[in-house]
Amino acid sequence: MANESSVVARVVLQQCLHARLQVKPPDVENEAEWVEINRGMVIYVCFFKGATEDIITKIVNTLLNMKLCETDSGKYTSVLELPGSVLIVPQATLGGKPKGKGMQYHANIGKDDGQKLYASFVAHCEKELSLSCKCTEAGTDVKHGTYGNRQVLKLDTNGPYTHLMEF
Amino acid sequence: MANESSVVARVVLQQCLHARLQVKPPDVENEAEWVEINRGMVIYVCFFKGATEDIITKIVNTLLNMKLCETDSGKYTSVLELPGSVLIVPQATLGGKPKGKGMQYHANIGKDDGQKLYASFVAHCEKELSLSCKCTEAGTDVKHGTYGNRQVLKLDTNGPYTHLMEF
Repeated sequence: MANESSVVARVVLQQCLHARLQVKPPDVENEAEWVEINRGMVIYVCFFKGATEDIITKIVNTLLNMKLCETDSGKYTSVLELPGSVLIVPQATLGGKPKGKGMQYHANIGKDDGQKLYASFVAHCEKELSLSCKCTEAGTDVKHGTYGNRQVLKLDTNGPYTHLMEF
Repeated sequence: MANESSVVARVVLQQCLHARLQVKPPDVENEAEWVEINRGMVIYVCFFKGATEDIITKIVNTLLNMKLCETDSGKYTSVLELPGSVLIVPQATLGGKPKGKGMQYHANIGKDDGQKLYASFVAHCEKELSLSCKCTEAGTDVKHGTYGNRQVLKLDTNGPYTHLMEF
């Protein structure tokens, strides 16, 4: 497995045509609340112990500029250049390490630190898309799940092109 | 990144309530063909150079017996015990290693060997589910994508609980 002590974040990326994520579960009085994006990238992110604020800029710049998005002509470009939207899904399960028939999450960052890094990650993504003329002209969005919640996700793809990246 | 030479397979796992995968694209005369599963597990799989037939049994047994599936009471159990269905998605992009702003796939297994291993992987999953009384009684299924094709996927989850496993 790859969670050597030097790895501070693990990210899985999938392309989508449409994705919908529950950000507030239903309760007695209210229906569930959802966020959604159209064409773009779903980013599942997990931080490990040792992750610090100074790594966030590098991670976000790398993810948003990697040529992982398929254009209409079948070439690859970044989500900023596509331009596409971004849905960020906190996904602590990505930090799991098999032990017997179960998964252990000993390498995962603590809740408070993870929440801060996640908020910073979201803010950096929002900033980068807002600085991209292509994204603002096209009206692309950054949407994100609530840290620590169940991530009820519905995904529609033209091929997810699932990628793994570690930092 | 984790694709040291010793890693022969990388797998991403997601839980689903329903998943639908295109197995034949539409053409002039015919509509697209799809396979689908209800509750169960989506297995995205990528083989690296050095992967051989003798590893398949171990991988399949591990994946199908890991407690990654949420029961109605919120506990975790294996897909065989749930019992749930399995959708297998060949996903060569999982073998990518970042180089500049693009991904390289030099560590991925060659097409012919990959196709054979993939077919064996599918056959082993089918066999294991067919040997499970719980699965046969519940009528759970193994469905899979076509190796080398675009994997047009639609996924509906109650939380994907994305896991990474390497062998």
